[in-house]
Amino acid sequence: MSEGAHVWLIPDGYIPEESTGPQPSHEAICVLNPSDEEAHLSITFYFEDRDPIREVRVTVPPERTRHIRTDLPEHLGGAAVPKGVPYAVRVACDVAVTVQHSRMDTSQEALALMTTMAHPVR
Amino acid sequence: MSEGAHVWLIPDGYIPEESTGPQPSHEAICVLNPSDEEAHLSITFYFEDRDPIREVRVTVPPERTRHIRTDLPEHLGGAAVPKGVPYAVRVACDVAVTVQHSRMDTSQEALALMTTMAHPVR
Amino acid sequence: MSEGAHVWLIPDGYIPEESTGPQPSHEAICVLNPSDEEAHLSITFYFEDRDPIREVRVTVPPERTRHIRTDLPEHLGGAAVPKGVPYAVRVACDVAVTVQHSRMDTSQEALALMTTMAHPVR
Amino acid sequence: MSEGAHVWLIPDGYIPEESTGPQPSHEAICVLNPSDEEAHLSITFYFEDRDPIREVRVTVPPERTRHIRTDLPEHLGGAAVPKGVPYAVRVACDVAVTVQHSRMDTSQEALALMTTMAHPVR
Repeated sequence: MSEGAHVWLIPDGYIPEESTGPQPSHEAICVLNPSDEEAHLSITFYFEDRDPIREVRVTVPPERTRHIRTDLPEHLGGAAVPKGVPYAVRVACDVAVTVQHSRMDTSQEALALMTTMAHPVR
Repeated sequence: MSEGAHVWLIPDGYIPEESTGPQPSHEAICVLNPSDEEAHLSITFYFEDRDPIREVRVTVPPERTRHIRTDLPEHLGGAAVPKGVPYAVRVACDVAVTVQHSRMDTSQEALALMTTMAHPVR
Repeated sequence: MSEGAHVWLIPDGYIPEESTGPQPSHEAICVLNPSDEEAHLSITFYFEDRDPIREVRVTVPPERTRHIRTDLPEHLGGAAVPKGVPYAVRVACDVAVTVQHSRMDTSQEALALMTTMAHPVR
Repeated sequence: MSEGAHVWLIPDGYIPEESTGPQPSHEAICVLNPSDEEAHLSITFYFEDRDPIREVRVTVPPERTRHIRTDLPEHLGGAAVPKGVPYAVRVACDVAVTVQHSRMDTSQEALALMTTMAHPVR
């Protein structure tokens, strides 16, 4: 079963610097791999004023989802995405997957959420 | 009238464990069947660390919508989606439908909402 | 200039019954007509347990947007969409347009927003 | 690398007039240019009751993102998008880019967010 696409793009990344309450402000790149093969992702992070962070490697097992937190270097093989600055994301994968991007913002009282499917390229 | 697609994918599912106020935290898989035939859905739920829940059956009558609550087993033929863990969804259907996924999070003061169209496969 | 599509689908409609603060809970079907021709919409509202409301007519002038409030019968030629029940929407148009759907929920303290592009059929 | 599209449409623009707390209500047109060429955008703003604002020029360097604030004329070459009125957006570009649109609303207590990928035309 090959369902989804091999390259996905997300222009609006931003990890708020502030958090209130028990839940930290964060973003997640959510990937669904419905195939029976392991999926090997290569993630690029783009910025407004500096060179990209390239080839961040993440694996998603067959028939599993992975919600990759961009505020947690341990989810990104040690790569650190800076907080409080705009960024964008490109996800490439050897098998077809589907990619959705979500933000939780707890910088003011009460939390806010937003989400969108990433843009599938091919 | 055949409008929509037969397979839809949603990577970012998550039912918050906490709720405040009169409205519970929940998610809904919202389906529109504009055709004049009954639509038979087969829903698969994927997780990060366990095998999928397969073949959850839901019916949508012709020219009707159904907003399927994933926190309510009675909406899923008895299947229980665990709270507080990431999940993903695949919806397959014998007739063309359109699928949108939404979350209401009332875990902190005041509610938050997010929604996206699911990714249409074919 | 023909940009967009002629039929759009939105599965997740819901107008909250409660509002707090100065802004009422509402939804809007937002249409962009970038062409140089007047766009004639025919909107259908679908429900879970009753027949659709058909052929609600709305016009969008050339090179204009219209944000159609579904809680205001005066925006729908007098048609009344019930509050507090799930609904879905089909928008058909004689010229190509783009359709986005948004909800503002002020039922608890502080407001919540969600939006998605509608699903383009053809 | 040519990834994305050359024309994108966004029907639901609205900059709330009110703000509370440290963050102003605003919207952003977020653009990712993953190519190795400079991207030259031409942005059109559409309204319900007045002629469009045309040919707002913005540049995005190669392998960079730009989050263009529509409430800040300095991000739009001096063009002023009015607050408190519905608007829509068309983004045209000489190289393929991806466009996402987001709103932060701080008009009541606590903030709200919404986002969607723009509609790709070609």
